[in-house]
Amino acid sequence: MRICFIGDSFVNGVGDDEALGWRGRVTAAALKAGLDITAYDLGIRRNTSADILARWEAEATARLPEGFPHRLLFAFGTNDCADDGRGKPRLTLAQTLANAETILARAKTLAPTLMIGPAPILDDGAADARIAELEAVLGRLCDRLGIPFLPVLDFLQQADAWTQGAARGDGTHPDAGGYALLARHILAWPACRSWLGLDPTTEGHQR
Amino acid sequence: MRICFIGDSFVNGVGDDEALGWRGRVTAAALKAGLDITAYDLGIRRNTSADILARWEAEATARLPEGFPHRLLFAFGTNDCADDGRGKPRLTLAQTLANAETILARAKTLAPTLMIGPAPILDDGAADARIAELEAVLGRLCDRLGIPFLPVLDFLQQADAWTQGAARGDGTHPDAGGYALLARHILAWPACRSWLGLDPTTEGHQR
Repeated sequence: MRICFIGDSFVNGVGDDEALGWRGRVTAAALKAGLDITAYDLGIRRNTSADILARWEAEATARLPEGFPHRLLFAFGTNDCADDGRGKPRLTLAQTLANAETILARAKTLAPTLMIGPAPILDDGAADARIAELEAVLGRLCDRLGIPFLPVLDFLQQADAWTQGAARGDGTHPDAGGYALLARHILAWPACRSWLGLDPTTEGHQR
Repeated sequence: MRICFIGDSFVNGVGDDEALGWRGRVTAAALKAGLDITAYDLGIRRNTSADILARWEAEATARLPEGFPHRLLFAFGTNDCADDGRGKPRLTLAQTLANAETILARAKTLAPTLMIGPAPILDDGAADARIAELEAVLGRLCDRLGIPFLPVLDFLQQADAWTQGAARGDGTHPDAGGYALLARHILAWPACRSWLGLDPTTEGHQR
C-alpha cells in the first residue's frame, strides 16, 4: 500500500527532534503491526490550502503507481487562518472552503481519503478562533463528500503534552511528546484503522 | 535551514519499521545537535534518474522559500541499473550520466549540493556490476561539477548490518540496523558535516 500524507508543518513533524512527527509514528505503528506500506511525507511548512491545491496531485500521482492500493490523507488549514502580518487571515474562510472542496472531491476519486482537522496556533487567540470556525466548516464539507474527518483542535488545546511542548519550542509546534500523543489519537480513530487495514480496535493494536 | 533529500526507496527508508531510514536518522542527529533544520523526504520507490529529473526541481522549489539557507542532497542510480525484466538495465549508463549532469548542474546553482552514490541491489549480481561502473562515473561527474560525492557500494556490500537486514527483508532493502549504519557513515563524512553545519569531527557530534 502506498500512502501520501499531504499538508503543512504538522504533517512534516516540525519541532520533533526524533524526525518522526505524528505521521512517522503512525507509519511505524502500522509497519510494526505487519502492514506492507510505503508512506510519503508531503507536508510543507507554511503551506495553505492554496499552496496544497497547486501541488498535491502532481506530487501524489508521482508516488502512487498502478498495481498497488493507494491511500490519501490531508491535514491543513492552520496556515490559512494564521495572521497575514496585517491582522487578517492569510486566506478567507470562503477561499479555504473552495480549495478544500476542489482538493477533496478530486482526491476521493483517486484513493480512499481521510482528513485531519487543523491544529491550533496556540500563541494567537484570534487565529485559533478562526481555526475553530474552519474546523466546523471542514467537518461539514467532509461529511457531504463522504470523507472521514477527525477534529483535533479541542483535543490538542487541552493536552499538556502538546501545549507544553509548544511552549518549550516556537510557541506553536510541539515536541516529540506532543506528536506521540496525536499519533495515538489518530491510531485510535476507527476510520484511520479501517483505512490502514489495522485491527478495528486499538486494543488489538496495542497487544 | 531547509534541506531536500531527493532520490529513491533508500532515501524514503523502505524496509525500516522505525519509519526513519538513514535520512531520518541523519536529520534527528542534526536536530539533537541543536541545528535548526527542516528536512523534506523526496525519495520515491523505483525512481530512476529520469523520474527524478522530471520532478525534483518543482518539488524542491516548493520547499525552499526565500529567506532561509537551503541544502540539496541526491541519492539515485540503483534503479537505473536494475533489470528491466528483459535482462537489460532500465536506463543505459549514458542516459543516467546525462540525467545526472542535468540535475546536478542545475542543483548547484540553487543550493550547496551533495550526492550519495547508489546502493547495491544485492540479489542481482549483474545489476550490482553495473552499479559499480555507474558509481565510478558519477564520482567523476561530481568531481568535475565540484559536488562532494560519497561512494557507498563497497561499504554496504561488505556490511553485515546492511546485507543481513536485506536478507531478512525483500533481498535489497535493509532494516533499521542497516539504515542506522549508513546514517553513521554519512554523518562521519566531513563533506556532510560541513554542509549541515555540524562540528567538523564526529567526536564532536558524539559527545
